[in-house]
Amino acid sequence: MTTTIRTRVAIIGAGPAGLLLSHLLDAAGIPSVVIDRRSREEIEQTIRAGILEQGTVDLLVGSGASDRVREEAHRHDGIELRFDGGGHRFDFPALCGRSVFLYPQHEVLKDLIAARVAAGQDLRFGVTALSVEGAETARPHVFATGDDGDLLDIQAEFVVGADGSHSVARQAVSPMGGHFREYPFAWFGILCDAPPSNDVLIYSNSDNGFALISQRSDAVQRMYFQCDPDAAPDAWSEQQIWDELQSRVPGTTLNEGTIFQRDILRFRSYVAHEMRRGRVVLIGDAAHTVPPTGAKGMNLAIADVVLLQRALRALLLENDERPLDAYADVASRRIWKAQHFSWWMTSMLHVAPDASEFDRRRQLGELRMVTESEAGRRYLAEAYTGWPFETEL
Amino acid sequence: MTTTIRTRVAIIGAGPAGLLLSHLLDAAGIPSVVIDRRSREEIEQTIRAGILEQGTVDLLVGSGASDRVREEAHRHDGIELRFDGGGHRFDFPALCGRSVFLYPQHEVLKDLIAARVAAGQDLRFGVTALSVEGAETARPHVFATGDDGDLLDIQAEFVVGADGSHSVARQAVSPMGGHFREYPFAWFGILCDAPPSNDVLIYSNSDNGFALISQRSDAVQRMYFQCDPDAAPDAWSEQQIWDELQSRVPGTTLNEGTIFQRDILRFRSYVAHEMRRGRVVLIGDAAHTVPPTGAKGMNLAIADVVLLQRALRALLLENDERPLDAYADVASRRIWKAQHFSWWMTSMLHVAPDASEFDRRRQLGELRMVTESEAGRRYLAEAYTGWPFETEL
Repeated sequence: MTTTIRTRVAIIGAGPAGLLLSHLLDAAGIPSVVIDRRSREEIEQTIRAGILEQGTVDLLVGSGASDRVREEAHRHDGIELRFDGGGHRFDFPALCGRSVFLYPQHEVLKDLIAARVAAGQDLRFGVTALSVEGAETARPHVFATGDDGDLLDIQAEFVVGADGSHSVARQAVSPMGGHFREYPFAWFGILCDAPPSNDVLIYSNSDNGFALISQRSDAVQRMYFQCDPDAAPDAWSEQQIWDELQSRVPGTTLNEGTIFQRDILRFRSYVAHEMRRGRVVLIGDAAHTVPPTGAKGMNLAIADVVLLQRALRALLLENDERPLDAYADVASRRIWKAQHFSWWMTSMLHVAPDASEFDRRRQLGELRMVTESEAGRRYLAEAYTGWPFETEL
Repeated sequence: MTTTIRTRVAIIGAGPAGLLLSHLLDAAGIPSVVIDRRSREEIEQTIRAGILEQGTVDLLVGSGASDRVREEAHRHDGIELRFDGGGHRFDFPALCGRSVFLYPQHEVLKDLIAARVAAGQDLRFGVTALSVEGAETARPHVFATGDDGDLLDIQAEFVVGADGSHSVARQAVSPMGGHFREYPFAWFGILCDAPPSNDVLIYSNSDNGFALISQRSDAVQRMYFQCDPDAAPDAWSEQQIWDELQSRVPGTTLNEGTIFQRDILRFRSYVAHEMRRGRVVLIGDAAHTVPPTGAKGMNLAIADVVLLQRALRALLLENDERPLDAYADVASRRIWKAQHFSWWMTSMLHVAPDASEFDRRRQLGELRMVTESEAGRRYLAEAYTGWPFETEL
């Protein structure tokens, strides 16, 4: 049987973008329905990226979406860049007046889900979108199926595809796909039970390849080292993993601990050809993915939400289509800057398998050029901590 | 017959680096012999690169090598970067307190040659170096031949290879060659009789490829457009050349005039593996070449001279080898930063023949990221106007 649901905005995907959008729309008096194919437990328990930009934190706190982020996020006033045997601290507040915050994405999701449930949001887990229809009409639909096999027909005035890099909504918006780039390396990532090894994240360029000494909490650490995309994570012993990580951050003794997760992260950049068709818009990973080096993925999704909620308020409360008509162009300016920043951090810090000795020495020249210049450090810090959200649409 | 000449420093090459070095050594009371395979007329009449860094001008004036540069050089307080239909002025004094100066290299050479001749410098044109011998001894030699076929044996305490990208001295210092990179595009360059089309140089990224609207004087202009490295310059009519240039700088009407020279500039980066062996050092293009996009070639040669004359004064006046022992490492830090800057300007502004649509849009994102940020503009301006010379060796 098919159940029909009517709402103003249908949101596919209960990730940070979809949930925050429903929260901001609710605050403006616009009801929405949010569906996600995953269970609440799966969403809340998958450990994901951990760095929030200053603007993301300000929005989460200021909109009432999370008080906990204010209490529990660890403010990081910089990063450390390592190369050629030396370490270089980038002091973010001194450089650009902003910081970043360590607060894992699954904690953001717990907060957002709790807030939405408390507010009576129509939020359905275990519901898989099958297709989006009628994008060019005033009444687009989402067809979906529940775990019980029943069909849902969600009829809305607007549909938002916030359904990640395997987006179903993308078919309706950008059927020809998108701009794509794949990198010839990946990250070998681990999660382990250990205290932090440094007060801020360490981004290390070494002759053996890149390593990132990241964190998730006082007791759980996330570390990565550059590897072949076809590496088999189980082929490495724990000791080999620690030796490899340690070799890439000379001068720091890593705090070791039980490794309870290991995975390979492939490096891809993607931007959908189209981010809007009629009454359907893609946001977050559905519209664009970045390699993780610049810590931009979730933050870029939040920036999409900031713009889109403004466009939807104008459309649905004032019948003003102009902000929506401007949406894709304005959003894409930040998206391509973030794509560049992510590419830049990646190419500046990794050792490409086909790099010549010229390339390697030029790269070290670049790292020196950036770190020796206050302007260079600030240029990087501005991007890492997040450009201010656009205020016009 | 072989004529033997004895001197303290033998300098191969009467380009800006070799001539300025002999000038600075003379000021310290150290005699030298300078040879060049070309005639004085050829050296003075070949029109070459035109942008001097602030530090280069300060050195030429302060050392008495050229008063004319102070009178006749045109100060340029910025450049204009064009992309995506817009122009962006980089105001160098406001950004970093320095400017650049338009004063063509052949004018620098006229001044240096006149000053050296007036000072009684042993300066020999039409003398071709054949080989450098005895690098690892206290008495290195330069074997050379004059236009008359006679052989010269120049016996010195130190030999400097300032003999350009086809250096003979390089064989004695870096027999295994160097780090090399070739780019998949070139510049089609013209010289023409016309007034300037803009008050500062225009660096333009366009869908058709890069163009640089440069200058040489009030009456002679230098312009370039990105082309295939195998392009045949004579296959283009004057009108085709103007149409191509004009298409790449929309918004500016170029002042056209008779084109009296046209050439193809291939894009290469090179750094010799070794810049010193014993009592022989390479400087300038003999040690490194850069693509012209960053205007770094001559300026980097001058920076080598600043360091080397200090090392030679210590060696030859105080018998202190330590500055010389530090020379290659200290010089290479600036060289690799300049290699990076030249690569960066090149890759940020040109359209690579194999660029994907992702690459092209990322590049536009980069151009926006740089120009929208005061820090980004300053980071570029610091490099373009020239980092301060190293004061320690």
